[in-house]
Amino acid sequence: MIKDLIIKNRSYRRFYQDAAIEKQTLRDLVDLARLSASAGNMQSLKYILSCEPQKNADIFKHLRWAAYYKDWPGPIEGERPAGYIIILCDTSISTNYFCDHGIASQSILLGATEKGLGGCIFASIDKEGLRKTLNINDKFEILLAIALGKPKEKVVLEKVGPDGNIKYWRDESAVHHVPKRSLDEIIIEL
Amino acid sequence: MIKDLIIKNRSYRRFYQDAAIEKQTLRDLVDLARLSASAGNMQSLKYILSCEPQKNADIFKHLRWAAYYKDWPGPIEGERPAGYIIILCDTSISTNYFCDHGIASQSILLGATEKGLGGCIFASIDKEGLRKTLNINDKFEILLAIALGKPKEKVVLEKVGPDGNIKYWRDESAVHHVPKRSLDEIIIEL
Repeated sequence: MIKDLIIKNRSYRRFYQDAAIEKQTLRDLVDLARLSASAGNMQSLKYILSCEPQKNADIFKHLRWAAYYKDWPGPIEGERPAGYIIILCDTSISTNYFCDHGIASQSILLGATEKGLGGCIFASIDKEGLRKTLNINDKFEILLAIALGKPKEKVVLEKVGPDGNIKYWRDESAVHHVPKRSLDEIIIEL
Repeated sequence: MIKDLIIKNRSYRRFYQDAAIEKQTLRDLVDLARLSASAGNMQSLKYILSCEPQKNADIFKHLRWAAYYKDWPGPIEGERPAGYIIILCDTSISTNYFCDHGIASQSILLGATEKGLGGCIFASIDKEGLRKTLNINDKFEILLAIALGKPKEKVVLEKVGPDGNIKYWRDESAVHHVPKRSLDEIIIEL
């Protein structure tokens, strides 16, 4: 059931860094994005893959982790992602990618989940730093980075409480709790 | 396999209009979006559901169908969608939804595909017309409409040819052909 996969597909931020990801695995995941819908079928998204330790480290330093964890600068060495898929827009094809990057990300992460991996989507990136480090051509707009690895944390869904607070939190066992709004709250009856 | 579901999930534009969709089915699909990732976990997306003939007709007239089919104004009566999920951003929560609507759409459409349904995402909407017709509060930004139904057309994936043309086309049997770029074209080697 797709619902089981969607529930299992949480945003993970700590990984077994030693559990390497093959390049072919990343290619298989991008293939899922390739086969997904694209606005006007333009397919302006392009992808950079990384599964080598040095390249991973180069990418890692440009990502901003877990905005609500003010005292947590991101995973420690040993718990960092084993791979990345960076999503670009090829502006020589189109400068309007609509929500293609969201569609692509969901396909990639559902595929990763099925393979026993997990990940996290980053829009908060030092994009110009990343461009310089990886020498990314100016014709590509950097949209997202998807960090991937074998998850090393537990994530639990919670109901949003009466105070409406949607900030995720970690408990004393480092379990990550994520409050989700109810179905009745998000469906507008007209 | 998620790949099978992703391949089966094509953009369909002609449906068995008489094959009604239950309200509960639409709610189940929105639940998949609810359980999917949201930037900063803000969950600013809200949803309007429609599966009643009159409401469907009200929505239909504000959608712009298949940009590349200049002589086709959209499906004829009898082949129109049996339901819709309209995705809004609740600007009282956040005005920046990042790619949440793409993630949500992919979850909804994969769920629909699993249920034997199919659909099409519309960003090209007469939004102010739709707002007036459905009396949508100004605090909601209209992002997308997902048309849903039991597909009444065949969609075939093709390779993009040497001319690079990505426009979909219909053959004499009304089969819809969609050229997709190759994996090697969309992966950037650095």
